[in-house]
Amino acid sequence: MQVSSLQEARYEYQPKLPGMLKNGVGEICVKEGKETASVADQDKIKELFPNTYGKKEITFEKGKNTAENKKQVVGVILSGGQAPGGHNVICGLYDALKATNPENVLLGFKGGPSGLIDNDYVEFTDEIIDAYRNTGGFDIIGSGRTKLETVQQFEIVEKVAAKHGLNAIVIIGGDDSNTNAAVLAEYMAAHKTGVQVIGCPKTIDGDLKNEDIEASFGFDTATKTFSEVIGNIERDANSAKKYWHFIKVMGRSASHVALECALETQPNICLIGEEVAAKKMSLSDIADYVADSVTKRAARGDNFGVVLVPEGIVEFVPEFSALIAEINELLAGENADEFNKLVDWASKEHFIEDGLSQNSMKVFALLPEPLQKQLFLERDPHGNVQVSLIESEKLISTLVYDNLRRRKKHGTYTGKFSPLHHFFGYEGRCAFPSNFDADYCYSLGYNACMLIQYGYTGYLSKVSNLAAPAEEWVAGGMPITKMMNIERRNGEDKPVIRKALVELDGKPFKYFEENREKWAVETCYTYPGAIQYYGPSSVCDITTKTLALEQG
Amino acid sequence: MQVSSLQEARYEYQPKLPGMLKNGVGEICVKEGKETASVADQDKIKELFPNTYGKKEITFEKGKNTAENKKQVVGVILSGGQAPGGHNVICGLYDALKATNPENVLLGFKGGPSGLIDNDYVEFTDEIIDAYRNTGGFDIIGSGRTKLETVQQFEIVEKVAAKHGLNAIVIIGGDDSNTNAAVLAEYMAAHKTGVQVIGCPKTIDGDLKNEDIEASFGFDTATKTFSEVIGNIERDANSAKKYWHFIKVMGRSASHVALECALETQPNICLIGEEVAAKKMSLSDIADYVADSVTKRAARGDNFGVVLVPEGIVEFVPEFSALIAEINELLAGENADEFNKLVDWASKEHFIEDGLSQNSMKVFALLPEPLQKQLFLERDPHGNVQVSLIESEKLISTLVYDNLRRRKKHGTYTGKFSPLHHFFGYEGRCAFPSNFDADYCYSLGYNACMLIQYGYTGYLSKVSNLAAPAEEWVAGGMPITKMMNIERRNGEDKPVIRKALVELDGKPFKYFEENREKWAVETCYTYPGAIQYYGPSSVCDITTKTLALEQG
Repeated sequence: MQVSSLQEARYEYQPKLPGMLKNGVGEICVKEGKETASVADQDKIKELFPNTYGKKEITFEKGKNTAENKKQVVGVILSGGQAPGGHNVICGLYDALKATNPENVLLGFKGGPSGLIDNDYVEFTDEIIDAYRNTGGFDIIGSGRTKLETVQQFEIVEKVAAKHGLNAIVIIGGDDSNTNAAVLAEYMAAHKTGVQVIGCPKTIDGDLKNEDIEASFGFDTATKTFSEVIGNIERDANSAKKYWHFIKVMGRSASHVALECALETQPNICLIGEEVAAKKMSLSDIADYVADSVTKRAARGDNFGVVLVPEGIVEFVPEFSALIAEINELLAGENADEFNKLVDWASKEHFIEDGLSQNSMKVFALLPEPLQKQLFLERDPHGNVQVSLIESEKLISTLVYDNLRRRKKHGTYTGKFSPLHHFFGYEGRCAFPSNFDADYCYSLGYNACMLIQYGYTGYLSKVSNLAAPAEEWVAGGMPITKMMNIERRNGEDKPVIRKALVELDGKPFKYFEENREKWAVETCYTYPGAIQYYGPSSVCDITTKTLALEQG
Repeated sequence: MQVSSLQEARYEYQPKLPGMLKNGVGEICVKEGKETASVADQDKIKELFPNTYGKKEITFEKGKNTAENKKQVVGVILSGGQAPGGHNVICGLYDALKATNPENVLLGFKGGPSGLIDNDYVEFTDEIIDAYRNTGGFDIIGSGRTKLETVQQFEIVEKVAAKHGLNAIVIIGGDDSNTNAAVLAEYMAAHKTGVQVIGCPKTIDGDLKNEDIEASFGFDTATKTFSEVIGNIERDANSAKKYWHFIKVMGRSASHVALECALETQPNICLIGEEVAAKKMSLSDIADYVADSVTKRAARGDNFGVVLVPEGIVEFVPEFSALIAEINELLAGENADEFNKLVDWASKEHFIEDGLSQNSMKVFALLPEPLQKQLFLERDPHGNVQVSLIESEKLISTLVYDNLRRRKKHGTYTGKFSPLHHFFGYEGRCAFPSNFDADYCYSLGYNACMLIQYGYTGYLSKVSNLAAPAEEWVAGGMPITKMMNIERRNGEDKPVIRKALVELDGKPFKYFEENREKWAVETCYTYPGAIQYYGPSSVCDITTKTLALEQG
C-alpha cells in the first residue's frame, strides 16, 4: 500500500492526553460526582431507563487504579456520517485496552451498526491500528446508517455479544446513535447480560453539544477544511473582483458549521438557519438581505463578494416548510396516482395550483422552474419531497438576481452581478484530523476504555475544558440519560438527546451579529489557509472560534 | 486589518533563494551562454523581432556584480488568472531592487495590463510589501485580462513609462501575456525608449512549460490544494462506500492539473484530454471506458469510486469539437435571426436536425436535453457556443449512467451507481503558496531584478533544476523569442510561445499509464492531506510528482 508523505509523517504523531490520563492506566482512579437527572421530562425518562437512569457523573483523577482486573473483550462501531478523528477514537481505545492487559481484545464491527447485527467484524492488531493512526476517514471498518433501535435488533446484538464474550460495546456516533446507545445500554442492563455500552460524541455538524459535551469530534477539522477553501475563494474574489460566490456548507439541522466558517473567514454574508426561523424570514426577505449587501458593495465599486449558506437553510424558512408539508400532503395516497397520470407539466401545474393554499402557491410561484419541477417530480420512496436535493445556494442566488433586476429597474442598483456556486461537505468529513481532533478523539477512546474498566454503562465518554491545552482537559463520563428529553418523532413520543441548535443569544452568534454589518459592506475577509499539523502552536493547536468564544 | 494566525506566521517565512543569488546583490555576476534561435519558424520570428531575437541565454553566478549602478524605476503587473505566489514575485523583485539601492522604486500597476494603460498604480513601500509576503492571491494590486498587443496600446505604455521614468516593466503572466511581453519588449527596443521588459512564468494550468521553463509558478500549490480535497473525497468514498464522485478540475487547454492530481491521489479514473484527442475518442468511448471501471468494481462489491475530469475535456473530443464548430457555423449571420424567431424548442429542434451533419446530429442526440438547450440558447456575445459553461463532469456521469443501464439490461452489470459532482478551481488559485512556490516565486522576482540591472530585455526570468533543493537551483534568463513559433490564431499567423500539452510519451503520463489499470479496479487511493508549510521536509518542501518524474 502506497501512502502519502503526510500520512507517513502523521503515523509518528503521539496524540496528547489530558493530564489525568497520561500517567499510564495503573494511575487512573475514579471520582464520582452527584447523581444526575435528565434535562427535562425526568419522570418519563426515568421510567424508560429504570436500570441506567440517575447514575453519577464521574471524572478521572491521578491515583491508584482500583478497577477489577478482568480480561476485556470490547466491540466498537462507527455510526453515521464520517468525521475526522474516528480512527483515533479506536486507536485510543485499543491502546488503553492493551496497556491494561495485552490479552484484551478489541473487535471492530464493519459497515456501521449493521456489522453488529451481521456479526461482520475484524479483530484489531497492532498492524491494523498502526496503519490508521491520526488519519481521516472511517475506512478502518467503514460506517453505516442502520439504526439500532428495535428489540429484535437488541436480541441479535445480545447473541453476537455472547458469542464473542463481549464486555462492552463502544458506539461512535451522533445524537441519534448515542440515543440508541442509551437504549441498548438499558436493554443490556435489564437483561443482565453484563454488556456495557459507552458512546462517543461524533459529528462534523456540531449539533451534539450541551452543558456536558463541549464539542463533538470532527467539527474542528471539518470547519477548518471548509474555511481553508472558503478563504481561498474569498482571496480569489478579492483579486479578480468580478464574482459573487455562493458557498453552501454541510449541516442540515443546525448552522454551527456555517457560523464557525463565518467566524474564521469573515465573508460578506452568512445565513443562519436558526435566525431565519426565529425571525420567520421569507425567501424574499433573505434575497433582499443579500441584495442589500450586493447593492452597497456595488456602490463602492465592488461587484464581488462571498455568501455562506448552510445546507439546511430552506427548511428553516417557515413559508417554505409549509409549502413542503402541503406538497407532501397533496401527493399522499391516491392523489399521487392522479398526479402521476397527468402527462405534461402544464396540466400538473393546474393540479398544483388547485391543491396548494394561496400562501404556499405564492411561495411556489417565486421558485425557478427547475426547482418547481424537482419538488414535484423527484420524491423519495415514501413520496416525500427530497429537501436535501434542493440546491439552496443556487435558489438563493437566483432570487437575489431577480431582486437586483427590480432594483436596477428602479435605479437603486447599477452594479454587475455574476454569481458562482460551490458546495463543501465531502471535502471535510475525511480530512486528516487536526491536532485538536487527533488529541480529543484519542482521549475519548482512551477514556472510554477507562469507563469500561470501572464498570460504567450508558455513559458518554466526556472530555472537557477543551479550549485549554490538552494537559488541562478533564476526562470522565456522563450518563447519556442526563442529556435526554422527550420529543415527538414520526408521530411518537421518544426519549432523545436534545439536538443543539445555534443559540441566538450565545456568544458565537452575538460576536457574528456585532460584526456582520461591517463585513456585509467592506471587504474584511480573513484567510485561514490549510490545516497545519506542525509549526507554531498558534497555527497548529488552536481549536474553533466557536469554542473559544463559548468558553470566554 | 485582522489576519489569520497562519498569515501572521507566514509573514515570518524567509523564502529560499538559489545558491548563486543568496550572497547579496553585490555578489551576483552574469555568465552569457550561446545565442538562441526560436524553436521553429526562425526566419519569420527573426523578422518580427529584429531587435530582440537571437540574444544569448544567460545564467547568474557568484561573483562581483559588474552592472552599471544607476537608479531603477520599475513597473510590475499581474496578468490573467490568479496563481499562488504572485505576491512573492513582487516581494522578491522589491527586495532585490531595494538591496541594490534604497532609492530604487517599484510601481505596481493595478487591475492587470489595463493599469498600465490607465496609469493606475501604487508605489510599493515596506509596509505594503510586508503585508503580502508569502500570501496567496493577486489582491496586492489585482489582476485583469486586458491584452497588451496593439501598437496604440504600446504607445500609451511608452508615454506612461516616460512619465514615471520607468527603466523596466515586469509582466507576471501566462503564455499569452509573455508572448505580449516579447512584442512589447521589441516595440520598446525598436523605439529606443530604454524600457526593458521582463516576463515571469505564471499559471496554475502548467501549460507554460518547455525545455527552458521547467514549471510555471502556482501549479505546485494549486494541484496540492486540489489533491488535498480530492484525497479527502476519496477517503470519504472509501468509508461510505456508496458514491461515485465525478470531480472536475481547472485546466481548459491542457490536462496537466488533472494528471498531477491523479499522480498524487491515484483515483480510479482520470481522463486526459490530450489522450482523448490522440486516440480520437468519442463521448461514447469515454463513457464506456469509465463504465468498465464501474462494472469491474461493482463485481468486487465496490459500488463507489472517483473519476477526475479535466475542465476542457469535451474540447478534446474530435466529434464534439466538430459539433461545436457546426453549431457556430449554423447560427452565424442571418441564420441566427431565423433560429431566434422560432418560438418553441420543438421547432428549434427541427431547425437543428436540418442544419447539422448526420455525424454531428448523432453526437447531439446523445447529449442530455439541458445540455442540448445550453449549446443553442446560451451563446456568447459573438454568437458562439460557450464551451466553458458545459458541466463536463455531469455530462460524463450522465453518459456513464446510460451506458450502465444498457449493461444492466444485458445482465453484464448488477451494481448500484450513485454519482456526485464537484468542481475545483477557485479553491486553489489563491491558496497560500507552498514553500516551493513561495521560494520559486521570490527567486523569479529577485532574478528579474538582476536581469533588469544587467540590461536585458525580452527575457523570461528563469529558475531551473527545480526538483533539487533550492540551494542548487540555477537562476538566469532566456529570450522569450526562443520559445516562440508561428501559430494560426483567429485567422492570422502569429508569433506565440508554444503551449505545452501533456506529452503522451512523457514520463508523468507513462507512469500514470502503467498504473491506471490497477487503479481502475482496485482501491489504491492516496491521501495527500493539506499543504504543510512547516514540519518534516518530506511533507513541506517537496514539489510536484510531475516535476519529479520529468527530472527522473
